[in-house]
Amino acid sequence: MNLDKKFQFNWKTRIGLGVMTGTSCDGIDIAAVEFSEEEFSKFTILKYKTFDYPKEVNEFINTVNSNNSSISEISQFNYYISQLYADAISKFMNEFNFSDKIDFVAVHGQTIWHQPNKTAFLNKSIASTYQAINLSALSKLIALPVVGDFRAGDIALGGNGAPLVPIFDFALFARYNSNFIVLNIGGISNLTLIPETDKISDIIAFDCGPGNILINLLAEKYFNLTYDNNGEIAKSGKVNSMLLDIIRDYDNYCELPFPKSTGREHYNQEFIDKVLHIFNDNYSNIPKNDIVATFSHYSAICIASSIEKLGIDKFKLIISGGGLNNTFLIDSIKNELISRNQEFVIENIEQYGINSDAKEAIAFAYLGYLFLNQEYGNVPNATGAISSTILGTLAI
Amino acid sequence: MNLDKKFQFNWKTRIGLGVMTGTSCDGIDIAAVEFSEEEFSKFTILKYKTFDYPKEVNEFINTVNSNNSSISEISQFNYYISQLYADAISKFMNEFNFSDKIDFVAVHGQTIWHQPNKTAFLNKSIASTYQAINLSALSKLIALPVVGDFRAGDIALGGNGAPLVPIFDFALFARYNSNFIVLNIGGISNLTLIPETDKISDIIAFDCGPGNILINLLAEKYFNLTYDNNGEIAKSGKVNSMLLDIIRDYDNYCELPFPKSTGREHYNQEFIDKVLHIFNDNYSNIPKNDIVATFSHYSAICIASSIEKLGIDKFKLIISGGGLNNTFLIDSIKNELISRNQEFVIENIEQYGINSDAKEAIAFAYLGYLFLNQEYGNVPNATGAISSTILGTLAI
Repeated sequence: MNLDKKFQFNWKTRIGLGVMTGTSCDGIDIAAVEFSEEEFSKFTILKYKTFDYPKEVNEFINTVNSNNSSISEISQFNYYISQLYADAISKFMNEFNFSDKIDFVAVHGQTIWHQPNKTAFLNKSIASTYQAINLSALSKLIALPVVGDFRAGDIALGGNGAPLVPIFDFALFARYNSNFIVLNIGGISNLTLIPETDKISDIIAFDCGPGNILINLLAEKYFNLTYDNNGEIAKSGKVNSMLLDIIRDYDNYCELPFPKSTGREHYNQEFIDKVLHIFNDNYSNIPKNDIVATFSHYSAICIASSIEKLGIDKFKLIISGGGLNNTFLIDSIKNELISRNQEFVIENIEQYGINSDAKEAIAFAYLGYLFLNQEYGNVPNATGAISSTILGTLAI
Repeated sequence: MNLDKKFQFNWKTRIGLGVMTGTSCDGIDIAAVEFSEEEFSKFTILKYKTFDYPKEVNEFINTVNSNNSSISEISQFNYYISQLYADAISKFMNEFNFSDKIDFVAVHGQTIWHQPNKTAFLNKSIASTYQAINLSALSKLIALPVVGDFRAGDIALGGNGAPLVPIFDFALFARYNSNFIVLNIGGISNLTLIPETDKISDIIAFDCGPGNILINLLAEKYFNLTYDNNGEIAKSGKVNSMLLDIIRDYDNYCELPFPKSTGREHYNQEFIDKVLHIFNDNYSNIPKNDIVATFSHYSAICIASSIEKLGIDKFKLIISGGGLNNTFLIDSIKNELISRNQEFVIENIEQYGINSDAKEAIAFAYLGYLFLNQEYGNVPNATGAISSTILGTLAI
């Protein structure tokens, strides 16, 4: 990477906060990361904490995602989310005595739209992504530089704007000269292959399909829970093969070639409703926990078949994200991999110094750090963009 | 201004493009401005040109402003507008041989929402503004640094996010030690008083009320024209005093104390429809050109009464914006000022080296330049913000 660096960031220390809010809307994850001045892949995780979203935020995001919102609401939501972020960041900084030690904040924002494939719009063919927040408003509220909108630049260069974590996975694992498959199970599940060749151009990364998102929606609908804690609901039910076949028939995402990405605009309440509608037209009702077990199993199938398609013999599998706590889901993934003759060892990312829940927040702190050093953030192989590029936008 | 400058912009020359799209949606104004390294108020206007908006953009913006749009459309519109801007900037750079001479681009974006007064939203009290564009997408498309979202920081600090041109007017006129009233008549009309004291803290600036926006909507509705060319429609009609009274009764914006700002969320088709509905309930129909004359006269009254409220004896009046070409409107303003015993000389901004149509585009180039030098961009007296602050967000 050899860019004409027009901007210089004159920091003395290099501590950044990464702030992540995922598609599963389970809260605001904040990680404080100290970066080395010498080497891009050296960093220390200082602290990590998750702050809950107020319940009405989840409800609002569901409304927006159903495309039932107006510009007035979207405009207000940008600044509302900025205030929520500012409140959480202030609490985080107070709790861990970070006042005046933070150099920058890197934020993901709340995805409320993601349309990486071009469609006709007015007189042009347009792809776009939308992470709600206002970077300048947040910067003023916390009096710190804020980097964000990391997906836009990649979308503008023809990429999917996702996944963005591969460059961070590369920084973490490339040094070990083994095949690593890094699997993150959030609302959506995604994987990155860091190949034993350790070449950035050999990285493969894409969204596998649903992670927790359909499970969470079902837990909410049938059990008034925000998620299936430890997979207990799924464990109390059994996978229904007729329903599973219907989901697999209905959803062709998992069969698409990579690179590819998806989101809540595809996996949402409507997805569930349509599938269950087809099922109920053909079969009699089944217990609600069987439905949860079946959708959980479907997530596992999408993940295992994605890994199989990589066509590598032997690998270390590193799992992170909220789905790691769903032992039904994890066991299903293992069984599906074994039945596909995959040779693998599951390792905990904590062995590599990363708190699993904090991983995405840390990765976004890293992306902010790359922006401020004017280093490329995307992996074209993973996103499909026409070229490597600096990702992000800076408010001061 | 003495800020800890964390970022440095290592430019050799300092040529910026200012790109403005106003609330009246009459096109994309681009100005190329060369800034001095020695002094913030020294700059040379190199070139200026306006590029038409496609007709469907106007229609879409009207739909959005009526609050009839979804997140998918708004998300796509951000990237659509970025492409329109990129196309216009490329044409501009080719036409004037600017390739590789431009250091940065400063953009306003297309305002589709502006709500500077806090209202309840979810569990917080929120104000917001929304200028459609994606800065990072535009930056990738033109391969240049882009500064934008200038209104957000001021809104976050309790200001109206408008007007933002006063800091530029100050740079232009403070050196002359006279009272200058700088009036811009775009969709909305706004004024800035640069007082003879030449203190930034004595600046007064606010939106007067409607400029061309209601006139344009009426020209479209009744005459299938995008605006009232030279005020010819208004001149062919006469002001209806009953209708004028109804407008004045219906609209209390002009009576509000400054600082204040307004926009298309207030002055729009609905405003016209409601006023005409009240009129038609009480009086018989009048000719369409009388309606245009009356709404034009109302714009003039809002402007003249705004100036009267400044309470200064003697001033130079500098008028810019599309409204300058509407001689019916300009004559009405003069007459209203005279009837209010105001002592004034109208001067042309061109005497001060500024192309009138280009003024806002130049002002936004200046705001971009201030951002890149980490200088304050807002005038708290004008916007109502709690403090001076750096305005803008940067994509590279």
